[in-house]
Amino acid sequence: MKNFEYWNPTRIVFGKDTIKLLQDLIPVEAKILITYGGGSIKKNGIYDQVKDALAGRTWLEFGGIEPNPTYETLMEAVKVVRKELVTFILAVGGGSVLDGTKFISAASNYIGDDPWDIWKNGAKFENPIPFGSVLTLPATGSEMNSGAVITRKSTVEKLSGGHPSLFPKFSILDPETTYSLPQKQLRNGIVDTFMHVMEQYLTCPMNTPLQDRQAEAILKTLVEDHQKMMQSDPADYDARASFMWCATQALNGTLRSGVVTDWATHVIAHELTAFYGLAHAETLAIIYPALIQYKGEHKTEKMRQYLERIFDLRGLSDEETQLAAVEKTKKFLHTLGMPTQLNDYGINPDEAAQKISQRFAERGWKLGEHQDILAEDVRRIVLAAA
Amino acid sequence: MKNFEYWNPTRIVFGKDTIKLLQDLIPVEAKILITYGGGSIKKNGIYDQVKDALAGRTWLEFGGIEPNPTYETLMEAVKVVRKELVTFILAVGGGSVLDGTKFISAASNYIGDDPWDIWKNGAKFENPIPFGSVLTLPATGSEMNSGAVITRKSTVEKLSGGHPSLFPKFSILDPETTYSLPQKQLRNGIVDTFMHVMEQYLTCPMNTPLQDRQAEAILKTLVEDHQKMMQSDPADYDARASFMWCATQALNGTLRSGVVTDWATHVIAHELTAFYGLAHAETLAIIYPALIQYKGEHKTEKMRQYLERIFDLRGLSDEETQLAAVEKTKKFLHTLGMPTQLNDYGINPDEAAQKISQRFAERGWKLGEHQDILAEDVRRIVLAAA
Repeated sequence: MKNFEYWNPTRIVFGKDTIKLLQDLIPVEAKILITYGGGSIKKNGIYDQVKDALAGRTWLEFGGIEPNPTYETLMEAVKVVRKELVTFILAVGGGSVLDGTKFISAASNYIGDDPWDIWKNGAKFENPIPFGSVLTLPATGSEMNSGAVITRKSTVEKLSGGHPSLFPKFSILDPETTYSLPQKQLRNGIVDTFMHVMEQYLTCPMNTPLQDRQAEAILKTLVEDHQKMMQSDPADYDARASFMWCATQALNGTLRSGVVTDWATHVIAHELTAFYGLAHAETLAIIYPALIQYKGEHKTEKMRQYLERIFDLRGLSDEETQLAAVEKTKKFLHTLGMPTQLNDYGINPDEAAQKISQRFAERGWKLGEHQDILAEDVRRIVLAAA
Repeated sequence: MKNFEYWNPTRIVFGKDTIKLLQDLIPVEAKILITYGGGSIKKNGIYDQVKDALAGRTWLEFGGIEPNPTYETLMEAVKVVRKELVTFILAVGGGSVLDGTKFISAASNYIGDDPWDIWKNGAKFENPIPFGSVLTLPATGSEMNSGAVITRKSTVEKLSGGHPSLFPKFSILDPETTYSLPQKQLRNGIVDTFMHVMEQYLTCPMNTPLQDRQAEAILKTLVEDHQKMMQSDPADYDARASFMWCATQALNGTLRSGVVTDWATHVIAHELTAFYGLAHAETLAIIYPALIQYKGEHKTEKMRQYLERIFDLRGLSDEETQLAAVEKTKKFLHTLGMPTQLNDYGINPDEAAQKISQRFAERGWKLGEHQDILAEDVRRIVLAAA
């Protein structure tokens, strides 16, 4: 087991009818900015619940934060925070609204020229605006971590960043807020959660039986209950609650404690979104099977454990294990109705491989648990996802 | 799934050679009181490591906090804190030192007559002294929660208490600090951890597949690896690290999220310690098998899951399930060298049953996940542990 630090100060308020507790969670004297996305919260009643909970408080709103939130949009929100002297931000939405809110929080009191430097170069910032969230889409885990992925349209960049001062003060997780989600978003959320676990689990054995089993607890729950989780009309409350808690637990720091993590798929997939605009989960589902196929030799031991404990599949040779791990993962994704090839989206594999690998060549990044995935490997992985 | 809140702000610093990081974890201007137990830390080198890490800092010490820490001893430490204007407490030891330190923290600025009221009647207190810990004995989980069990000798009481302001600011978990532990303390720590999980797991099904599997992750790791965890000369670093992390994860709030918990065994076992002075783990190992035997009918469904997933035992009738759950649990305890009967300690069952049930009759407490364990049930459970 590797040395590690674990610290996660976000307060989780979980369950039915919990949005009304906002009144107690946000400081009384706060001037609040409510951030949200495309406006679905105004149709499904969540906006009204938030408004009711904040009756008598001082608040304004900033909508229109897009999926893969952009620097360009978020800087408009930063202007509002600065002009209106906002002291607390309430993110109401999914991972994009939460990630975007973290950027707004960090950028608002930044004294350098361009807050993009916080994400691009790790520039220091002070006095982030405190924020909390009402989560409406289980997927990214952003509700209980301090990271955020931000896209800059003008430079076609999508970058991960974050800081320990960017944990939400609280996150309200009411499973009923997921009832109005379309099937595609539920599917994407399940895939996103699954991949977050895999990135921290399917690496090399580190003698961490507890962490392995904590990861498998989420994988097994998703594989076994994904149908119930996606069921609508009527939705299954407990299954939605399980899904929501799986998504949060998948990326709150627990699983990475003491192990070696991969994350190569995420870095490559971010480029696929930056260039072609696919949803995050869609890009993960394309890149991940290709990546573990390409790096199968380095992942065989954990693949064997994955097949045994999640799919009850035993007694395979090394080569069979590598093949089966790819196939079982793809099959699960297909069961969810999730495509796994570039061709499914009409993307030219040669062009994608060229564009994306060139990015890695320029940056000199080394990816994966052994930091041995270089630009040429990225090219082959993207081609393998044709 | 039930509604729940989860909040745990303790920073965990885990791994080899981490005691030296104390320098960065305790505020520079702090006047520190180091609290510890019977002095084993002076023999095994941990005291010296702490002293080295605090070179140049202002500190004093208070040793002699006993297993099952007593109000009487802790009030002596409170006097020191008040007289010396201590501003930070560093607990170096196991659960008893940590629990005791939480009491000292809460009691030192208490303005009422007797700080015992905080534990006995939930009296309010303000400005607890901040504290951190160097954990040397994995067992109670006190290093990452805000609860503490305190004994008052004069009234033969042992009471659970706690408050959200009593989380350690940090806990350093260096598995090598466990290398000098005697076998009996390792055994007790494993049993303690196991029982913490069981109290939150073996209740009634609540459609919480993730939480169930998170509990099973710890149980399975303990059952599978207990021999490696107890191995000495040489100790197995990774196994000790796993044990240490299991103990912390067993009682940091994760497992109780959204489920129904039991804790009847703990409440009854506390009385056994109060009257007869046995170690906490020893009393749990006596009461628990008797309790789940007595309440087997209400626990059958989870017993079946426990037997299947932890012991790979399937296809039993309800009655066989109830018997097997008791027997498998006892067998695991015996494998660890842990006695499970009152007779093993020469305690008269009739006397113990009488004394303990009388306490519950006086208090009118209702125990267990269905709050249906009353004084008469307690009497029968203690008798069944003869």
